[in-house]
Amino acid sequence: MNVSFFSELLSDITERGRRLIGAMPEEGGLPAQLLLACQELLSSRGEASGVGLAREILDRYAHLDETAREFFFLGLARDFGPNRDRLEALARAYLDRPSLETANALHAAAESRSQEAIRRLNLAPGGTAALVGMRADLLKFLPAHEELRSLDADFAHLFGSWFNRGFLVLKRIDWNTPASILSKIIQYEAVHAIDDWEDLRRRIEPADRRLFAFFHPALVDEPLIFVEVALADGIPEAIAPILKADRPVLPLDQASVAVFYSISNCQEGLRGISFGHFLIKQVVEELAREVPNLKTFVTLSPVPGFRRWLEAEAEKPASPLIGEAERELLAALDAGWPPEEEERLRRLMLPLAAHYLVRARGRERRPLDPVARFHIGNGARLERIHWPADLSAQGMKRSAGLMVNYLYDPRSIEANHEAYANDGVVATSGTVRRLLRGQAEAIDPVPAE
Amino acid sequence: MNVSFFSELLSDITERGRRLIGAMPEEGGLPAQLLLACQELLSSRGEASGVGLAREILDRYAHLDETAREFFFLGLARDFGPNRDRLEALARAYLDRPSLETANALHAAAESRSQEAIRRLNLAPGGTAALVGMRADLLKFLPAHEELRSLDADFAHLFGSWFNRGFLVLKRIDWNTPASILSKIIQYEAVHAIDDWEDLRRRIEPADRRLFAFFHPALVDEPLIFVEVALADGIPEAIAPILKADRPVLPLDQASVAVFYSISNCQEGLRGISFGHFLIKQVVEELAREVPNLKTFVTLSPVPGFRRWLEAEAEKPASPLIGEAERELLAALDAGWPPEEEERLRRLMLPLAAHYLVRARGRERRPLDPVARFHIGNGARLERIHWPADLSAQGMKRSAGLMVNYLYDPRSIEANHEAYANDGVVATSGTVRRLLRGQAEAIDPVPAE
Amino acid sequence: MNVSFFSELLSDITERGRRLIGAMPEEGGLPAQLLLACQELLSSRGEASGVGLAREILDRYAHLDETAREFFFLGLARDFGPNRDRLEALARAYLDRPSLETANALHAAAESRSQEAIRRLNLAPGGTAALVGMRADLLKFLPAHEELRSLDADFAHLFGSWFNRGFLVLKRIDWNTPASILSKIIQYEAVHAIDDWEDLRRRIEPADRRLFAFFHPALVDEPLIFVEVALADGIPEAIAPILKADRPVLPLDQASVAVFYSISNCQEGLRGISFGHFLIKQVVEELAREVPNLKTFVTLSPVPGFRRWLEAEAEKPASPLIGEAERELLAALDAGWPPEEEERLRRLMLPLAAHYLVRARGRERRPLDPVARFHIGNGARLERIHWPADLSAQGMKRSAGLMVNYLYDPRSIEANHEAYANDGVVATSGTVRRLLRGQAEAIDPVPAE
Amino acid sequence: MNVSFFSELLSDITERGRRLIGAMPEEGGLPAQLLLACQELLSSRGEASGVGLAREILDRYAHLDETAREFFFLGLARDFGPNRDRLEALARAYLDRPSLETANALHAAAESRSQEAIRRLNLAPGGTAALVGMRADLLKFLPAHEELRSLDADFAHLFGSWFNRGFLVLKRIDWNTPASILSKIIQYEAVHAIDDWEDLRRRIEPADRRLFAFFHPALVDEPLIFVEVALADGIPEAIAPILKADRPVLPLDQASVAVFYSISNCQEGLRGISFGHFLIKQVVEELAREVPNLKTFVTLSPVPGFRRWLEAEAEKPASPLIGEAERELLAALDAGWPPEEEERLRRLMLPLAAHYLVRARGRERRPLDPVARFHIGNGARLERIHWPADLSAQGMKRSAGLMVNYLYDPRSIEANHEAYANDGVVATSGTVRRLLRGQAEAIDPVPAE
Repeated sequence: MNVSFFSELLSDITERGRRLIGAMPEEGGLPAQLLLACQELLSSRGEASGVGLAREILDRYAHLDETAREFFFLGLARDFGPNRDRLEALARAYLDRPSLETANALHAAAESRSQEAIRRLNLAPGGTAALVGMRADLLKFLPAHEELRSLDADFAHLFGSWFNRGFLVLKRIDWNTPASILSKIIQYEAVHAIDDWEDLRRRIEPADRRLFAFFHPALVDEPLIFVEVALADGIPEAIAPILKADRPVLPLDQASVAVFYSISNCQEGLRGISFGHFLIKQVVEELAREVPNLKTFVTLSPVPGFRRWLEAEAEKPASPLIGEAERELLAALDAGWPPEEEERLRRLMLPLAAHYLVRARGRERRPLDPVARFHIGNGARLERIHWPADLSAQGMKRSAGLMVNYLYDPRSIEANHEAYANDGVVATSGTVRRLLRGQAEAIDPVPAE
Repeated sequence: MNVSFFSELLSDITERGRRLIGAMPEEGGLPAQLLLACQELLSSRGEASGVGLAREILDRYAHLDETAREFFFLGLARDFGPNRDRLEALARAYLDRPSLETANALHAAAESRSQEAIRRLNLAPGGTAALVGMRADLLKFLPAHEELRSLDADFAHLFGSWFNRGFLVLKRIDWNTPASILSKIIQYEAVHAIDDWEDLRRRIEPADRRLFAFFHPALVDEPLIFVEVALADGIPEAIAPILKADRPVLPLDQASVAVFYSISNCQEGLRGISFGHFLIKQVVEELAREVPNLKTFVTLSPVPGFRRWLEAEAEKPASPLIGEAERELLAALDAGWPPEEEERLRRLMLPLAAHYLVRARGRERRPLDPVARFHIGNGARLERIHWPADLSAQGMKRSAGLMVNYLYDPRSIEANHEAYANDGVVATSGTVRRLLRGQAEAIDPVPAE
Repeated sequence: MNVSFFSELLSDITERGRRLIGAMPEEGGLPAQLLLACQELLSSRGEASGVGLAREILDRYAHLDETAREFFFLGLARDFGPNRDRLEALARAYLDRPSLETANALHAAAESRSQEAIRRLNLAPGGTAALVGMRADLLKFLPAHEELRSLDADFAHLFGSWFNRGFLVLKRIDWNTPASILSKIIQYEAVHAIDDWEDLRRRIEPADRRLFAFFHPALVDEPLIFVEVALADGIPEAIAPILKADRPVLPLDQASVAVFYSISNCQEGLRGISFGHFLIKQVVEELAREVPNLKTFVTLSPVPGFRRWLEAEAEKPASPLIGEAERELLAALDAGWPPEEEERLRRLMLPLAAHYLVRARGRERRPLDPVARFHIGNGARLERIHWPADLSAQGMKRSAGLMVNYLYDPRSIEANHEAYANDGVVATSGTVRRLLRGQAEAIDPVPAE
Repeated sequence: MNVSFFSELLSDITERGRRLIGAMPEEGGLPAQLLLACQELLSSRGEASGVGLAREILDRYAHLDETAREFFFLGLARDFGPNRDRLEALARAYLDRPSLETANALHAAAESRSQEAIRRLNLAPGGTAALVGMRADLLKFLPAHEELRSLDADFAHLFGSWFNRGFLVLKRIDWNTPASILSKIIQYEAVHAIDDWEDLRRRIEPADRRLFAFFHPALVDEPLIFVEVALADGIPEAIAPILKADRPVLPLDQASVAVFYSISNCQEGLRGISFGHFLIKQVVEELAREVPNLKTFVTLSPVPGFRRWLEAEAEKPASPLIGEAERELLAALDAGWPPEEEERLRRLMLPLAAHYLVRARGRERRPLDPVARFHIGNGARLERIHWPADLSAQGMKRSAGLMVNYLYDPRSIEANHEAYANDGVVATSGTVRRLLRGQAEAIDPVPAE
């Protein structure tokens, strides 16, 4: 009999949510009922039963199929905007009497009710994880539905606040980490795929290897982003020696360079919430403390937009960069090149890569390459360009075999960042500038960088 | 030489913040410089040096005196509002073309820049704790400065999001808890003061006592709110037997009632962010799971506004509640009453208390008593009223010796909450209703509750 | 300069050990030096420098080759016995005046000095693990060197005391366990080999699977013994359905039977120190608490000595158990049998198995089968016999495809154990007794069990 | 119904123990029954029911009164010796054929059965703690019962093995340590009593204070021994400045001296099992690592046997050390001395103390003072002697106000230890030797130390 009180209590909480949703009119089916349940969640009744109701909504959402989810999101976007009458009145009030007070009232009135709905869904146990998953779903519908953009902004705004850097926890991942987390590292690695557990072990167990990840307390077992690091005695020029199975382990006291050779975001639902910036800086601090003889912090990065750009350039009838001779040479990229041609190819590729990374610009005059945008935006400097450096299928297909080092030098990060933010300047080493100059002489005058 | 790289790195980060602030013009002194530093934090330079700059601002703030803090807050409120031109333009745009899109733009434009400044200050290690402290300071200036209200709303909004129930962690506090946390429990207990470590031990070590607190991952060692629980075999009528030093411990299998006898908020800076509601519900779940024979969950609560109300009532020349005879009797409250008068006093106090708790209403027709507002607002029912129940100095001074039980019955919480939210109904037991009726007959007709 | 004090301190400790050993005469080489170092360890100088000396001895031992280890063990056995003169004197003293006091003195004098040496080697950090490894080495030399038996007894005696059940910690191993421990589970599984990490995951992650291991605080990451458990709704008859990749997971509330389907000892160096007995009993308690609807606890065990016995029996010219017809049938075991013969084979195998397990006895009239000895010795009952139940290569080779269930019924464990310990009775179910009777009728009279 | 299986199982285990004991004949009462239960524990039945039986014996023991415990111990000592016939036979066998084999057999036969009984009692959950408590009881009966010495030796032998240094865990105790452990630190402090929680906090929270303790995994919350450390910038001369409430905290980078100012053993039941030696050495390592600028490790120790020795010396009619004038001066120790006499007293006390610590010898020519024996035996050097240094009641009563520093210098510990162990040499500083010389000139020739 006593046991039943607790069961009753639990089932009460669950039942209440279920009952409330069950009581919704059936037309429109489950998604329509869930929308009504979200309305309820915002009401005074929702205050008393919020946890149970939120749990039930998230549970039911989890069982919706694609079409039903699309319907649900469209409903949220359509019906959970701000109260229009109230907003209109307050906009007028502000224009009449512009003050901090009226601005505040206007701010409150202009907030979508969907934003508050998301906040309340987070009351459920495990709510944060479910909401991150929900946004990953939403992102899939965005391309087809411009009108979902505002709902997505609600998620993005709240996640930006909840996943504020102040709440993130840096943890080292090693061979003593729970397997449940390691299996996610295998799954999420997006740059140099991890073949199996032995491959993973080689990246985290040896004394000259590190893997760090950011975690959030509400997503206990889910890494948000991670970086893989190799400690080395020089700046590496290719990825294969780092990943290979049988290699000598470098004694810690001989390590002078930390190489960030892979950075992966793990949560599609957190797209646009940027962690990488903070991750790299904190890992630099961490490593500098642990291994005092480290003096250089560089990446070994792919250039994932290069191949596409190169092919587009090569197709231009009168490219100033690629002539007929070069075009033939490039054809060897896929076919394989004879050893005696490698040096010629290299001398062709390096300046083209330098041009692509530094001169080729896209929207708002930012570099075309996404990885370059990330590191340069963080204040790093384009240090060196290597070819051939990644002969894996993906490395050839996207980066045409190129890899580059971005240098994180704490002494110039801030200045680099600012020059880039204000004037679009891409910080480069002398080596890279020489590549550009050599090429430039043939094409256009050297810019005064 | 190697060691110095890390020291350099660290001092770089710190220095950069210091340098940035040091470079600010000196007029207005430190608070003015901090305001400029906050502007910097919102700029593009702030993006690269955010962590260091935020750390430095918070460090320096910590050393400001009262006057300087006041100056700083007033500056924040004055200079960090929304961009007025932009807001005006967008308000007009919305009125011209009301749409979700324009509403969103308006929402963004109406947000105070101080809100973003607070978000960025949270980048610093330990930022959240510092910001909670900062708001506690701010609250002290509110009464004198109406214009700080908007800044306070920024804090409250962000804290509401950051301290969302989904991020709180319930922990049981017992004799195995670190002393650093226990010493804070002693410090924060606000209802029945904890005399010393032995008194604390009596409240957390015996098998029939519990103490639960909410924690937030970013405030590691700081409880947010806690509740003390006594397990009993009946509904208690007074506080002294619960707190006394030598009492028999009740075997768990004889416990049928859980008594919440003290609830304390710990963080002044989180005023208005409500946790109590969730705390009680989660503790009910926790206890029901752990001790399956528990069947009743009640509080033993003070009535802290009663004495003041009673005295005001007694001073009214023609109170319908208190006549000349009663007035004389009440005079004995402080002087002490002879044993033979106790029953008469009791028969006077109970209906007065029932009236005060149920009928006496303040703003928005809410009950006058703050503790009553809290529990009734949570969906609890006013179950019983006891006198004399708390003869401590504070108990006499504020509650005139009264204590009451509010009953949390999971089966009626939701209905009670709703009736209160919508119609202002205070849920009461038959016992309390009889007290009201007895009194009412003498004064006014019984309401149809 | 300051840093050097600590380095100096550390190197002092190490150096001292090194120096002491380095100072030993070189004839006989390193093993001879290590023997002298062990003498030193027992001396008064060893008291002051024990930790450093023990560390150094263990370090150097780790680098010895096989021959050198053999030499070292033989030296320990030869030179570290009790002091003979003293022992002789005390033996005489006891015979003259037999008393508790003289017995105690005799006991002390009869202890090998090697035992104290082992105790002191355990002062080194990580000493226990190194000593367990050392005994694993020693065991390899035992067959060839009868004179090492006493040294082995020293290890066994100390390990019995150090790994007393009161110091063992039971831990559940699941998918949240560190990979370093899981990789050892894969390595140590001795009954049904774990193919890879996915196979492991299937055995520890689903809600109806458990794996429990005993750990010792001084061997942090090293399981001592573990048992794999499947929760089921009936007594299983074969291993394949338990191990297969795609199987429905049984909801916990439908589980009535806990099946111990694999028990593996992990530390060769702890051979003879018995943990299995305690492990099973504690796991039964643990599971009964966690899953209250469990009512039956059985094993699904191999019969690893059966095939060899069967073949020996079959070769006997006039076996009362196996005639010509049966012999032919058994030939099909390896060749594969046509489906229509399976039932005949089954009817042949089951009584033979029952006979082997219950009647066939070896040393001290214990059952021939080692797994049977273990479970019957623990007080379990031979419950059921299944064929064909394990068609894996190893299952056919050792158990001829048989598997059996031993039942752990807390109500009869003690009586079973005692009947076995005192009278050699193997507890059996009615089913097994019927098998024996059917066979017995053909061969010999039923024993009054 | 299901729940009952587990309850049944549990009660079975308990009941079985209870039943077994309940079945013992009643004459002699409970202690006699417990002795029979211990016999049972050693029997084959005990193997199957060991855990339950051990638990029950320890539970019942816990409820025995003093007299019953005495009876129980006497019974254990009397009835659980070795098997005399067997021992006699093996003693003869050894004398006939002295070999490792016969020595081993003799060793086994000479072991008291009480030792094995203690091992088996340790099977019970919490057994180790209960056994440590049991020995603490036993020690109280030793003075009156010589015949219990052998039983005590059994405990001591097993504890020596179980509490081997390799199993001890060093933990720092600070303000984040659970209160349950801190309350034991308050209770066990034996040198400079801790007044209350604030006093404790002053000893563990400031940055220049440390407290380290050894723990054993089987006694989770029970410290075995602890040491309190003050970091200082010079060798301290008195205890009061270290303990006082308001004192400036020394920044870590100014600390050059670590002062061990209090060492307390916590477990009476582990008397004679020495940890202090290892504790000090490991804490030295720990501190040297954490605070690299520490260069000196000293104690600030009482001289607890000095006052008694001094008074005995003063009563000798013709003491060569104390004449009439000195005797008068010493009378001022209790009465209080005028400031102008302090220097004379000091000049009297210091050489007397030096003599007492270095020259006055007791059994086996060891120093009379127990604290001196401990530190000198560890290889420390008597560095300085201070007076007046501890004016507390206890400090005056036992040490006559003296305190001394023993210096732990890793470079000379081993040599000091050996000189002491072999030749009884007490290592002393030049300062101390000068004190001795000054005095010696008056009395006897300087020894060639």
